This record gives sequence, C-alpha cells and structure tokens, in this order.
Amino acid sequence: MIIPKKSKLTEAQYQEVNTILSEFDCSITPIPGATRTIYAIRGDERHETMINRLEGLSYISKVDTVQSPYKLLDITASLATHRITIGGKTLGRDFLVVAGQCTIDPKNPNYFYETAAGVKEAGAHVLRGGVWKPRTSPHSYQGNSKAIEILMQAHQKTGLPVNTEVMDEEQLEIAVDAGAHMIQVGARNALNYSLLKKIGEKTSGKGTVILLKRGLHMGPLSEFICAAEYIVAQGNPNVVFCPRGTVPGMDGYRNHPDESITPLLKQKTWAPVVVDPSHSVGKAIYVPQCALAAVAYGADGICVETHCSPKNGIGDDPKQAIVPDVLKNLVIDAAKLFEVTKKYQGYLVQSAE
Amino acid sequence: MIIPKKSKLTEAQYQEVNTILSEFDCSITPIPGATRTIYAIRGDERHETMINRLEGLSYISKVDTVQSPYKLLDITASLATHRITIGGKTLGRDFLVVAGQCTIDPKNPNYFYETAAGVKEAGAHVLRGGVWKPRTSPHSYQGNSKAIEILMQAHQKTGLPVNTEVMDEEQLEIAVDAGAHMIQVGARNALNYSLLKKIGEKTSGKGTVILLKRGLHMGPLSEFICAAEYIVAQGNPNVVFCPRGTVPGMDGYRNHPDESITPLLKQKTWAPVVVDPSHSVGKAIYVPQCALAAVAYGADGICVETHCSPKNGIGDDPKQAIVPDVLKNLVIDAAKLFEVTKKYQGYLVQSAE
Amino acid sequence: MIIPKKSKLTEAQYQEVNTILSEFDCSITPIPGATRTIYAIRGDERHETMINRLEGLSYISKVDTVQSPYKLLDITASLATHRITIGGKTLGRDFLVVAGQCTIDPKNPNYFYETAAGVKEAGAHVLRGGVWKPRTSPHSYQGNSKAIEILMQAHQKTGLPVNTEVMDEEQLEIAVDAGAHMIQVGARNALNYSLLKKIGEKTSGKGTVILLKRGLHMGPLSEFICAAEYIVAQGNPNVVFCPRGTVPGMDGYRNHPDESITPLLKQKTWAPVVVDPSHSVGKAIYVPQCALAAVAYGADGICVETHCSPKNGIGDDPKQAIVPDVLKNLVIDAAKLFEVTKKYQGYLVQSAE
Amino acid sequence: MIIPKKSKLTEAQYQEVNTILSEFDCSITPIPGATRTIYAIRGDERHETMINRLEGLSYISKVDTVQSPYKLLDITASLATHRITIGGKTLGRDFLVVAGQCTIDPKNPNYFYETAAGVKEAGAHVLRGGVWKPRTSPHSYQGNSKAIEILMQAHQKTGLPVNTEVMDEEQLEIAVDAGAHMIQVGARNALNYSLLKKIGEKTSGKGTVILLKRGLHMGPLSEFICAAEYIVAQGNPNVVFCPRGTVPGMDGYRNHPDESITPLLKQKTWAPVVVDPSHSVGKAIYVPQCALAAVAYGADGICVETHCSPKNGIGDDPKQAIVPDVLKNLVIDAAKLFEVTKKYQGYLVQSAE
Repeated sequence: MIIPKKSKLTEAQYQEVNTILSEFDCSITPIPGATRTIYAIRGDERHETMINRLEGLSYISKVDTVQSPYKLLDITASLATHRITIGGKTLGRDFLVVAGQCTIDPKNPNYFYETAAGVKEAGAHVLRGGVWKPRTSPHSYQGNSKAIEILMQAHQKTGLPVNTEVMDEEQLEIAVDAGAHMIQVGARNALNYSLLKKIGEKTSGKGTVILLKRGLHMGPLSEFICAAEYIVAQGNPNVVFCPRGTVPGMDGYRNHPDESITPLLKQKTWAPVVVDPSHSVGKAIYVPQCALAAVAYGADGICVETHCSPKNGIGDDPKQAIVPDVLKNLVIDAAKLFEVTKKYQGYLVQSAE
Repeated sequence: MIIPKKSKLTEAQYQEVNTILSEFDCSITPIPGATRTIYAIRGDERHETMINRLEGLSYISKVDTVQSPYKLLDITASLATHRITIGGKTLGRDFLVVAGQCTIDPKNPNYFYETAAGVKEAGAHVLRGGVWKPRTSPHSYQGNSKAIEILMQAHQKTGLPVNTEVMDEEQLEIAVDAGAHMIQVGARNALNYSLLKKIGEKTSGKGTVILLKRGLHMGPLSEFICAAEYIVAQGNPNVVFCPRGTVPGMDGYRNHPDESITPLLKQKTWAPVVVDPSHSVGKAIYVPQCALAAVAYGADGICVETHCSPKNGIGDDPKQAIVPDVLKNLVIDAAKLFEVTKKYQGYLVQSAE
Repeated sequence: MIIPKKSKLTEAQYQEVNTILSEFDCSITPIPGATRTIYAIRGDERHETMINRLEGLSYISKVDTVQSPYKLLDITASLATHRITIGGKTLGRDFLVVAGQCTIDPKNPNYFYETAAGVKEAGAHVLRGGVWKPRTSPHSYQGNSKAIEILMQAHQKTGLPVNTEVMDEEQLEIAVDAGAHMIQVGARNALNYSLLKKIGEKTSGKGTVILLKRGLHMGPLSEFICAAEYIVAQGNPNVVFCPRGTVPGMDGYRNHPDESITPLLKQKTWAPVVVDPSHSVGKAIYVPQCALAAVAYGADGICVETHCSPKNGIGDDPKQAIVPDVLKNLVIDAAKLFEVTKKYQGYLVQSAE
Repeated sequence: MIIPKKSKLTEAQYQEVNTILSEFDCSITPIPGATRTIYAIRGDERHETMINRLEGLSYISKVDTVQSPYKLLDITASLATHRITIGGKTLGRDFLVVAGQCTIDPKNPNYFYETAAGVKEAGAHVLRGGVWKPRTSPHSYQGNSKAIEILMQAHQKTGLPVNTEVMDEEQLEIAVDAGAHMIQVGARNALNYSLLKKIGEKTSGKGTVILLKRGLHMGPLSEFICAAEYIVAQGNPNVVFCPRGTVPGMDGYRNHPDESITPLLKQKTWAPVVVDPSHSVGKAIYVPQCALAAVAYGADGICVETHCSPKNGIGDDPKQAIVPDVLKNLVIDAAKLFEVTKKYQGYLVQSAE
C-alpha cells in the first residue's frame, strides 16, 4: 500500500512508481477515496530495495506491506506442522523446563554436578550450563573452553540433554562437536547474522535445538522472527524464541520483562516460545512470579537459572539463580497453570477464525 | 550520598556543601575510599530544593538518596496496617475483580444494565462504568453527565459497588455526590496533582476507594507512589495502584504490558495493586492471559473491561471488552492462581528478611 | 484501509463490516492483491468508535487511517495561514526566546526582578516565571498565588510579556485575570483534556499564547497534536508545541532529549515549535548545546530556565537554570544558526512538493 | 556503596559481607546515618562477581559503584592524551566528515566511483562504502566480497581513506588485508564481544580506526564504552564512538535520534564521537538538520550516507542517502557551527572543574 504525501500522485509520479515496481515484477492499482487516493501494490511486495526506493521518493509518505518477510517461519508456511522435540518433550504439547547455571566455574566443577543433580531431581528437562560468557567488561571472567567437558560430564551423569551459549564460530564448533543438544544465542548476538547463518549450517540435519534470545531493544516482532529465519534458511528448523527482557530496565529489575510478547509471536509464527524469567527480572526472588506470568501468557516452556549454592556462583548466578528446591515447586505449579491457560489459547485461536 | 566529580572535594567546596546542608538541618560526613572520597548526608535528606542545590554545583556528579519521599505510603509507615475494603472484599486477603464497561452509552442504557447483570453473575465484586471519557480527539464522544444515573441505577439493581473515572473537579463532585464507591484516575491524569489533591479532600473520611492508574510513561516507581501520596496526604488512605501498560506500546498491543511492576510496588509500599489488563493489551482476545499474568505477579485484583455485546459498545469497548461468559471463567481461574502464587509472595517476603 | 486476518473476508464478514461503515456514512471497496484482498474505506474514516468496532471484529487484523484526526491544526487546514505574535516577534519568521525562572520565590522577590532584568538585557523576548509548581512529592514546595504579583511587577519593570504555568481552573483564572501573556501547560497535564478545554474557552479571543509541553512518554505525534486541538477547538488558535524531553531519561540527563521531533511536527501541523532544553537535559551545563540542537532541527524558538543566581533558586532552578551571561551568548548564536538552518527547512519543504 | 534493605546489617550479615569483600581484596566501612546505616567498599570495587554476590544477598537492596569499569577509555586514564588521525584530520581538533554509500552495488560500480568523486569534491575526509550488509531478512541482498575491490579502486582514484563495515572474522581479514583505513562495527554487532576482540587483535599497531556504532537499545553509557574497551584492550586505541539512533524509533523516523548522548560520552571518556544522522532519522530530507544537531552537541564529526543517484542505490541508499551537492553545503555549515559550539564545550569543561 503506497500512501502519497498529497491527495494523489501526478501522472509523472505515477509513471515513476510504476517503473520501479515493474523492475520487481509488481504493479500498481489506484484506490480513489473521499479525500485522497492511495495505491495498492500487486505482486510480491517484500523486496527491501523496492520498498526503500519507493520510500525514497519525495512525494511518497510511506509504504505499508501486508506480507510477512519470514517465509519459512510464518504461521501459514508449510513448515508450520514441524514439531521440535528435546529431552523427551515435544514443544507445543508438553511444557519444557530448561534449568541450570549461567556459568560453569571450571575451578569448582562439583558445584555444577550438584546443580545438575538438583535440576534433574526438580523435574527439569534440559540442563543449562554456560561455558563462555558475554561480559560487559573485557576485564571480567569470559568463560573457558575446558568447561565444555564438565557440561558433557553432567549430561552423562544425569541423562539430561544440555544447553550452552556460543558467541562465535570457534565456540560453535566446540559445542556442537562435543554433542551439545541445545545451542543458545544470547541477546547481544541476537542480530549477529553471520553467527546465525553459521549455526544454521553447522547444525543442519543434526536435530540440535537453537534457543534464540530476543535482542535487548524493544524492536518489532518481524525483526526477531527474521533473525530466526536466518537459522531455518540454512537448514535447521528447530528454532525456539526466547524473550528475556528488554532495555531500559524497569526501575528495580535488571530488564523490562517481556513475556507478554508470547501471544503476539504465536499469532505470527509456528515456532515455540520458551521464556527466560531470570534475565528479565535479574533477581532470584522475583523469578518464580515472572516464570508463572510467562506460562499465563501461553509460553511453551521456561529457561531458569538454577544453582545449588548461588552465593558461590560466578557470573550472574549469585544474583539471579534460584535453588533446586524452589525450582521443584515451580515445575509443579507451572505445569498446573499450563493446563489452565490452554483454554485461553483456545479462546485466542477460536477468536482468530 | 554525595558523589563528587573529582576524587575529593576541596576545602572550599566542602564548606559550600556544608552550608547548604545546614540550611536544611543536615550535615556531611566524608567517607574516604581507595581512589575517591564520597560524602554521606546525615539528617532528613528528602528536601527537593536541597538536592537540587547540591546537584546544581559544578563539582558534584550526583546525589543519591536512600530515604523514600513518600512518608505515608512507605512499607514501613504506621499506615501499613491499614486495610482497604470494598464489595465485601478486603484487599490483600481477598482477590478483587472490578469489571464493566469503559463507557456507558446514555442512548442505550439497557446494554449497561445487561452488562451489570452479567458482571454480577460472573462473580465480579465492583461494577465499572465510564460516565466521562478522555478521548484523544476533541471531535470524539466525550461522555455525558446523565450517564451517572444509569451507573447508580445499575448499582441499585445489582447491589455491586460502582467505579467511575473523573477528570476534573466538577465531575468529581457529581460522582461523589451520586454515591460512587470507587473513583478512578486515568493514566492521562495520573500526575495531575491539582486533581489528586481535590480527590483526597473530597473523599476524606467517606470510605471511597481511589483507583490510581499508572501514567503512560515508564517513569520511576517513586513518582507513581508519590502521586498516590497526594491523595493520602489529604486524608484518604484508600488508594489502590493500577498498572495499565505504558507507551510506546509493544508491537501488536495497545500499550506495553507492565503487570510485572507489581512485586516492585509491593516491596516499597503497603497499598494494594489491582491490574488493568484491558488497556495494557488493548484487544479482548489477549485480556485473559494478561489478567492471569497479573495474578502470577501477585496482584491483589484485576480491573477488566466487560460488555454484554462488545460490538455495540462505544469508546474502547468494541476492541477491548470481553463478554461476561469469558469473565466468569477468568474469575474462577484467577482465584485459583491467586492461591498458588501466594507461596511465591511468601518466598519474596521471606527472602526480604 | 482494513486488513483482514485471512486472505479475504467471507461474504458474511463483508456484510457485517459494510453495516458498521454505513452507520457512519462510509462504505467499503475491496482491493484484490496477489495473495490477499484488503479493503479501502470511503468517506470520513476518523470516527473513533467506528475504528474500534472494526478492530474489535475477530477477523480484522488492523485498520489504518490516512486522514489526520486534528482538523484545525493540520498543515492543510484553512488556519494554516494564521500567525502567532508575542513580544513583537512573529513565530515562524522571527526566532523567539522565552527565559526566566522555573519558580519565583515569594520570600525573595528581588532574585526574580534581577533575573528579569538579566533576561531582558540578554535579548530574550518573553519572561518566564513559575507561580505554581507541579512537584513529585506532596511534601515539597507547591508554589504560591502571591507570586503572580511579582511576575506582573517584573512585566511592568521590563516591558517583557510574561509566561506562567497553570495546573487547574483556579490558577488559570488568576493568571489570565492578572494579564499573563503566555500560559504554559506542563508535561504532567499535557493530556488533561478538561484543563485544555478550559484554557481554550478562557483565553478565546484574548490573544493569549498557549505553550503546550509534550507529555512525558514517547507517544505518537497525533496524540500531541490532538491535545493542542482541544485548545484550538475552544477558540484559541495561538498554540505553540513545546518538546521538553521524554521518560525514561537518557543515562545522565533528566529526560531523553526530543528536539528532533521538530521537523516531524512541522510536516503535519502549521503550529510553531518552541523547544525547552532545560527540562530535556536537566543540568545547566548541557543546556546551551541542547538549545542549539533545537535550532538545528528548525525550532521556532527556545524556552530556557535562567536565574541570576541559580544556587539561591528554589524548585529546579539550582540544577537547570543558566545565568543571564550565558543566555546572552546563546541568544546571539541561536539567531545565527536560525538563519543557517532555514536553508535545510527550505530543502525539506522543497522535497515535500 | 552497599545499601541494606533494613536500617542496618546484623552482625552476622556484616561478617558475611566482609568475607565476600576480602576474597577480592576489598573491605567494608559502616557509615551511620540518621535513619539508616550504609556501607562503603574500600578497594577496587569493580569485580563483577563480587558485586553480583553482594546483590544476591537477600538483605542487600543494592550496590552502587563509583569507579568506572573501563580503565583504558576513562577520561582520567593515561591514554587520554592519545589523538586519532585519519584523512589528514586529527579528531578533537578538526571536524571529520565520513561520507559515501551504505552499499556498493557490484553490478554497477560506476555509481560508486561517481559518488566517491562527489564526496571528495564536497569536502569530506573519509569515503564510506558498504561491502557486506546486515539485512533484516535472510532473503535480501547480503553484500558481496567482490565489492572490496571497487572500494579500494575508489580510494586510488580519490586519495580518500576508506571505511567499510565487517560482521565477522572472515570479512575482517578481507577488509584489513585490502587496506581499509576505517573499520565499522554496526549496531547489530555492537555487543558482539568475540568480533570486537578479533578486531582489536587484527588491527593492533596498524593505525586502523574503528568506528563503533551504538547498539539499538537505550542502554547505559558504561555498556557502550565497555564495548569499545574490548577493542582497546586488544591493542588498538583508535576507537571512535558512533551514535546512530535507538529503537523504538520516534514516530516518523527510522530510529530515535540520540546525538544528544555526545556530551555525556565526552565527560566520561577521552575517545571522540562521530555521529551518524542517516540511520537516526532514516530519510534523506531530515539528515542535514540531524547532522547539525550533532555538531551543536559537540560531536567531533559526522558519518553521512551519500549517493550520486539515490534512486538507483541498493540497500538503504534510496531512502537515506543525500546527494553530493547537499553534502557540500552541509560540510561548510557544519564546520562553521563546529567553531561556534566549541565555546559551549569550553563552558562544559570549565563548569566541570
């Protein structure tokens, strides 16, 4: 839909617009209104350069597009019947709990083994353990490749599939070659398209699940979905959206909680949503309530930082991690609420018809 | 706490600061650190002019205050044992549901009577009905004082206490004189201090409950609490905080949902929190999930736009209002979840000790 | 423009939409596209209730309107040739400087008289002096009606027209009856429609200029313009837009500077823009740069807090106010830059044709 | 500074805090106040894990740190006398203009050669040319390594040093090996710490200048400065901060302009600031005003998308790029304003003393 600045295009303007459209196999149809004529685009209107050229014309106010730019993840795409399975759970049908440490301390592996046992005992389905960590300051602890062995050892001990974050190609190779079942992309790399492409390539056909955190800003949904589209386009459809709070933070939390984005994502894309309450609120005492709010909004799962002894943790664990006993209650309550809220998702779908 | 720009104050600067403090019966104590000296303020540090004078000095980086500026609403204030009761429910102990129309249509009062009956039947405790409406455009319907009679008539029919929004002193007089039980201050007037003072004066000693909506911006908690303090300072301690989403809205909702502010408010103030999911998300299909998220965060109640026939509503009702049947399910599920989440509020309080 | 959720409306949906439109003297035209049909609205599409009803339908994704909801302030309105004059300056042609104290201290009127003399000497055109002040805390100084006499006295001494902020009808009466030339509406009352209407009524035909501050949130332009429309619709077309920073503030400033909104306003409305840099940045040392940035963006003037002795000021003056000597330089440099930037406004207008 | 939740720490809490601090060679000093005791940290308080452990304690409200986490870029660091030179211009003393295309079209190299000639003729100092482009959709044009030859060819023809953006290690190698003089890190990779480290390593000792765009969110200054610290810590002190607008965008612009961050950066760090107005506003007609606003705020330079024929551009050029003739005027006006605003930077510095 092309909106002109004045009440209608002149003949010369109309021709110029038409010429641009025809380069991209599109055409124009005027729609005369009471006070203004607008112009519909016929054809595939999603070409970024075409839109930019039109919006670059001094007599065009704006161009609205109706078609989504994510062809593979769109809720109407043929992939929409694809189901993602991990830890014996099928996302969409079963509620998924990912839990574990933000950071594995390679000097004290026993903390992680104890956390892993606690997480398993609490009823979580995937074990999270940070090997490398994006840290605001270059002078802070950055992680250590040796921790990958501790992570895989914990997998052996518990039988739980494991999740870890990668920040570059080298870490990706190490994590995938070691057998990590879920690869996490952090908020700071949420729009690092080179990394997303490499992840898609490297994990294609391997069954690896990719947990894509939302970027730190309150950007449009389409940007978040398009970032995931980079991974799917390289051959791995096992992508999970992970809201984790945006910046600037709510006065008192680390970030501004955004689990409420869940129903909006689910209306546009078939991919599941697993919310991270720990980074949203940034303090352990607020985590259970935020996690339950995510379930209320229809999330398919939660990713919760958990540590057997938070005060001995490194990275963000001393502030954010809950203990396995709290996790255990949360797993039970989240599962109950998951059943209750399905009704309102049904209401959502019903109303959309 | 006074933070200087350089590593410490010079003798002359120290004297100037001390002179300002002494005007307000405060004094200064230096705290030498490894690389920088900071300065503690002893005494009541909450004088706005004192803080502004200090921050106005070219050699001061900033002044941090620890004491809250809301003396009456602070969680440690003597009023903290005050309990607010309406519709037979005591806030804090019982879950409160306020429901009804955004706008009463004076031309079609039967819609409101039918809504009122539906709201009662659904188990809500307070009936909401907008008599006057803040509308973005001056050329839109602005409400009508005659609708107050319809509102009070519905109170007679159902026995439910009633809520209505006022925007100025004249409307306040009409609403209070008619016997409205709950007076609502809308988001656009959330910082209209003249109105807040008049509300406090007019309702002092009458038992009227004031539902104070949060302003449209993501401002600090202290500003929200201070706005309520204006009402309490004039003699009415029955103030309820009402988060209702902030601007800019999340891509797809009317506003940016902010029920997550609830635990933060509860840590600072004793006043209850009743969340409005309808304005947060702005579309009926998303309302139940947002309402349950509010309960998950520990809200004491919800305020939900409900209409017996949304498509025949005026104002925001056609978009936002749910029907009484959906409200009925929601009341039941919210009550259940309210019991579940108490545990995590206990966790919150326990951790705070 | 009506965008359905599915590829096109069913026959029954089409009829339902058409019925709603016909109530408001509008009609519908389908525009079939390659993959989806959208529907144009013919007629006056600005009825809020009509739009809400359409968006309330479960099968409608959204309704986009092209016509602006502000009929009087629109750049194409017949009022667009109206020019506002104050202090011998015609806005749009001449650069306007409003300067003075945030708050008049009634205990120390001589500070204000000295400020007034300094402001006049610096070359400013309107004298600002706060009689009443919206303060975050009810326990802070709130202003004093007696200060109006000090303000009018300063007008007598300097010959400068005066500006003061009002927060309610009572203050409005006092200020207008005393002869204030410019009435200011603060950010907290920017959407207080009852007050805006009363201001329009009270000042209609009197030549009073209204300086309307932008609300604290990053809301849409149309909301800001519609607020001004309330005043114009009551008979006073002398409205000036005043951006003053939004919340949450930039890390280090009081607010998030928003002088950049100026060209956007000027494309949509004929009313002038006078920027307040003092509240935007909130610290005197940053004010001159912010003021010049406003000029760069094409502002018609600036409103700058100025105090002869900031450290003896009350309210925000100790932090925000610059001294008359700095103002003097700023007036000269702003005027120079005003001439330079006209060229780029010309470029703007030229491109819009 | 440690702020407890209650009025003071118990003896056991005090010991626990002291034990944590001692692990990091810090110690604690109580500062008794009128109503509350707070606790100063002595020693290097910047250890992230130490702060997280303290904030993880249930009885601690928050920990405020005074020391900056960026040791090398701090305005008081020994590197503060370092000066960055490119294109014969010394940043801080001379105003720098970077100009050229967002994207080089490898199919039509002549456009870029013509742009390069126009940019040189307009008086700019560095030629910008995008070889690879981060695009929201994976289905859009992503750039092409062959364009690097076109870029270096343009350098040969004009003598101007060249700037290009890299998104991963492979592109970094190609760009540096080809001899690019300025390497740009885009907003989406602003917190891609792996890439920042590699850039620092690869360009160490080579004199390459790094233009670091600000991330898309309104995060704290310290995060932006710390990102640059990653590069400096690897051996390249030639880092330039580049604000370019944040998300969510102002209603009508691509982003929310943030040139106003410049004075805040300059108070904290010695590194120069070069503002990108093109991405901030996102439309050519608004670019000159935004560029001049950046100069008003004390920017050391601007980076402006320029194209000899915008409508034939690819990527963002059709919307954002100005033509060389407009650039020419802008270079002259910016230089004039740069001289005028120095006075207010002097005022800034003077006031800071």
